[in-house]
Amino acid sequence: MNVNGKHYRTIWVNETDPRVIQAIDQRFLPHKFVIEDLRTVDAVAVAIRDMHVRGAGLIGAAAGYGMYLAALYAPQDDGFDEYISIASNKLKATRPTAVNLAWAVDKQLEAMKEAETPEQKIHVAFDTANKIASSDVTSCKQIGEYGLALIEAISKQKQGKTVHILTHCNAGWLAFVDYGSATAPVYAAFEKGIDVHVWVDETRPRNQGSSLTAWELGQHKVPHTIIPDNVGGHLMQHGMVDIVIVGTDRTTYTGDVANKIGTYLKALAAFDNHIPFYVALPSSSFDWNIKDGIKEIPIEERGAEEVKYMEGLCDGEIKKILLTPAESNATNFGFDVTPARLVTGLITERGICKANKESILSLFPERKNDIQEGYIKFYCHWIKTAPVPADQLKEIITYRDLLYSKRLIGVYPNGVGFGNISIRSGKAFIITGSATGQYPASNEEHYAVVVDYNLKQNSLTCTGPLKASSESLSHAVIYESSPDTNAVIHIHHMPTWQSLTDKVPTTAPGVTYGTPEMAEEIKRLFRETNVAQEKILVMGGHEEGIITFGKTLEEANRILLDHIINT
Amino acid sequence: MNVNGKHYRTIWVNETDPRVIQAIDQRFLPHKFVIEDLRTVDAVAVAIRDMHVRGAGLIGAAAGYGMYLAALYAPQDDGFDEYISIASNKLKATRPTAVNLAWAVDKQLEAMKEAETPEQKIHVAFDTANKIASSDVTSCKQIGEYGLALIEAISKQKQGKTVHILTHCNAGWLAFVDYGSATAPVYAAFEKGIDVHVWVDETRPRNQGSSLTAWELGQHKVPHTIIPDNVGGHLMQHGMVDIVIVGTDRTTYTGDVANKIGTYLKALAAFDNHIPFYVALPSSSFDWNIKDGIKEIPIEERGAEEVKYMEGLCDGEIKKILLTPAESNATNFGFDVTPARLVTGLITERGICKANKESILSLFPERKNDIQEGYIKFYCHWIKTAPVPADQLKEIITYRDLLYSKRLIGVYPNGVGFGNISIRSGKAFIITGSATGQYPASNEEHYAVVVDYNLKQNSLTCTGPLKASSESLSHAVIYESSPDTNAVIHIHHMPTWQSLTDKVPTTAPGVTYGTPEMAEEIKRLFRETNVAQEKILVMGGHEEGIITFGKTLEEANRILLDHIINT
Repeated sequence: MNVNGKHYRTIWVNETDPRVIQAIDQRFLPHKFVIEDLRTVDAVAVAIRDMHVRGAGLIGAAAGYGMYLAALYAPQDDGFDEYISIASNKLKATRPTAVNLAWAVDKQLEAMKEAETPEQKIHVAFDTANKIASSDVTSCKQIGEYGLALIEAISKQKQGKTVHILTHCNAGWLAFVDYGSATAPVYAAFEKGIDVHVWVDETRPRNQGSSLTAWELGQHKVPHTIIPDNVGGHLMQHGMVDIVIVGTDRTTYTGDVANKIGTYLKALAAFDNHIPFYVALPSSSFDWNIKDGIKEIPIEERGAEEVKYMEGLCDGEIKKILLTPAESNATNFGFDVTPARLVTGLITERGICKANKESILSLFPERKNDIQEGYIKFYCHWIKTAPVPADQLKEIITYRDLLYSKRLIGVYPNGVGFGNISIRSGKAFIITGSATGQYPASNEEHYAVVVDYNLKQNSLTCTGPLKASSESLSHAVIYESSPDTNAVIHIHHMPTWQSLTDKVPTTAPGVTYGTPEMAEEIKRLFRETNVAQEKILVMGGHEEGIITFGKTLEEANRILLDHIINT
Repeated sequence: MNVNGKHYRTIWVNETDPRVIQAIDQRFLPHKFVIEDLRTVDAVAVAIRDMHVRGAGLIGAAAGYGMYLAALYAPQDDGFDEYISIASNKLKATRPTAVNLAWAVDKQLEAMKEAETPEQKIHVAFDTANKIASSDVTSCKQIGEYGLALIEAISKQKQGKTVHILTHCNAGWLAFVDYGSATAPVYAAFEKGIDVHVWVDETRPRNQGSSLTAWELGQHKVPHTIIPDNVGGHLMQHGMVDIVIVGTDRTTYTGDVANKIGTYLKALAAFDNHIPFYVALPSSSFDWNIKDGIKEIPIEERGAEEVKYMEGLCDGEIKKILLTPAESNATNFGFDVTPARLVTGLITERGICKANKESILSLFPERKNDIQEGYIKFYCHWIKTAPVPADQLKEIITYRDLLYSKRLIGVYPNGVGFGNISIRSGKAFIITGSATGQYPASNEEHYAVVVDYNLKQNSLTCTGPLKASSESLSHAVIYESSPDTNAVIHIHHMPTWQSLTDKVPTTAPGVTYGTPEMAEEIKRLFRETNVAQEKILVMGGHEEGIITFGKTLEEANRILLDHIINT
């Protein structure tokens, strides 16, 4: 779209030097228009993490170019693949909620796999990055055409009177490579001469609405009014909103929509006032693995200072002011999830569908086999902190690495890890972090602390450098049920599992791992069996899964080894 | 409550000089604690209007003291009453939404009426102001006791685990004279040793949550976390909120709750997640005249600069920063209305009741006769502007004042005005403002411009120094139905009304004035009768009401006078 009359994308390859990626640095908008040169994958990772670039589509495009830059500077020998692997993990770790990020990185990994020499891989990565960016543009343009029909219909119904569209956050062209998702229909309608007006939600705490959406609409002369996030419900009650269109960072194949925090509140108000609520998304924003968006989509928590301080223009300079009492705490969840039941429809590059599995698959039938009707994970409230000091982890590291060496903890060929281990620590417990099964030697960076949990809510609070293992709830109920237990080990071993099932206390076969039902099953074993004495249980519905526990790690480990069948 | 360990009220009489009222100037919180001296009713009016003091109860108390200051400096002769009357209008005009303002002013007017000499009136006003303040304190304390029971019950149910309370805006002690309404139960629970934690909605655009509620909770060491207004829904979805308690600026006798903009969105989220949503209010915040809160409660619109700019601390100074593109528009509605169906209960100084007429009256049975099952007014979207230049109003002023002199426009002994007059002005029309029936001689300050209306939505947009007449929709449909009409007169005259009913085109007797149904009835007359030729109609369901219209004011007036029966 245009900036001061000149056409721009949000990210592009420098015309004269293809080793330089250029992007609009959105941190300075609306007050300054700054272009940043990105020369390394690290620079791209910082740009994504610190939100120089943001928005579902743009994060994907930036990650694509980041992988290209990684390939460009990777060692041109056997070290190439490892370098690329590290780079891909680095990029994926920058932001947790937008699914486009992992999608773009994986697309690059697949593409490079096909090429043979490092030089060929660089070429492939360059082409793939450009393709990701261009397909984003094409998708957004198509979303615009399909969404236009909705606005046109309202305009006709209102006999040409102004169509009032409410949007939240920025799903504009600044969030993609061009056109935007939620804004694409607005731009298309505006170009066609339809009388449109946009209510722009300010979108605290980062003000993407008042700083980015208002800016890009203003650059295109689209009539708009900025409103505090609190106002939308009132406008809807009084007939001042005709349609809501928002973007999404991740939408499940069942139609649950993760988007900027506050979207759910607007969806509730739209539903309450019978106003259509649409979500515009390129298909790269679908997550084909997640069934329940509220329970399963990870929600990024950002720093409290984004709530407590605000930046803006003062006497020609960008200044930061404190809004709150200095000593007050603040919490900063980046996204929320709008349940499918509140969503009127999804506007995709292939057309408009309803927010349910059948309707989504009718537009994307080739995705049918991608859907994994996976287990329901708990809701993990992760407060990222420094690791537990290494001296408190000596023993658990020793036992964990021992179990890894025996392949009782590890990672399957498909990349999914298995096995985990924990020790009680006061009212909390320390446990191996999620997806750490790949490391032969663990260190302090691989352990999390579970500080609270709630079975009924299926939620858990943990601290540390990464999230706690997905089996943490099972550990939690063992500590709860057995006050003198101080260590829990969960390993995978097929022959032992087969031989012990129903010989030792065994959970019901219909209950899968990582679920609150599994935790309830374990509680039942404590009530109904002698598991408290045997200190071993088999997870009937979790193939290979065995848990032992004891007063010490030594005891839990001894009980385990006593039962292991050496085939 | 306490500030740095010392007890304060928000407003009080100076200990040594009773001519000075002192109040905490809340504009500087949380960064600076400033006390303002208020010496005149004008100073009080400015303090209320510019929000040095704010919040339902405190506005009432300040208005009470303002009336006392007015009495103190009123001419001690025949001019006393007029001075007081002007002062009361001045105070009432400062903020439109909080009902406590008019309540306190009227309480003073009534009290002073009982006294005879100006000197006695001053004494009475002083006592009444102090009583208003003290009864606010007593009410809030009682609200605290009743609300405490709710928090205590949740704490027990959670076996002593932290009770998480979400609140919006500041209905704390800073919004009252002491204790607060929504915070009173929190302070009571905290004092009793119950483990409480408050989620404090930031409350854009004026940030009363992050600047005032967080500050006062912090002063009392009550654990709290500031959240952007967008976050509450997400917290509720994940079981992180146990109860919502908010205040109100006006609650109808049917249980509709006007409160700070955004409250409705939190009520929707609480309802969707089965979380109790309570409104704490002293009975002075009830409006016994309004049945439908969404349609009838006037909603204050404040300046766009409160949305576009924000103030905070930077390098030890309070600075103002621009958040948005300088050229973008912004809109700033101060309140919204939460329908009674979303409210779990009301916590009053007499106990807890449900949000419906029967339950409210069970606590306040003496109010039964105060309830006026009034007509439904339209929703008035008023953009306050300068008046229409006087030279465009010469003719309408002449005719209006003539009609006043004949008592065809005026005010009944109960204070309710009657009659109104309008002229077409391009696509809009100019009409007498609301509640101007009292003025013998009208001027430019008494006329509004109706720029848009929507019968279906029962809404209307007007500009000018005051709101358009409550009969504006009737005028609007006449201009719509009769393109060559340029003037409309609506007067009251009982003998003529009785004699003309059903002799000239007459609206259905069941339809009351000021309603969209009346406007539809008038449209029907244009379709089904010769009203377009006769240019006179009788409002069958509006005793005394007669409307005439014409190409000019002269014509409309002549038709009227031709029909007036001189009894």
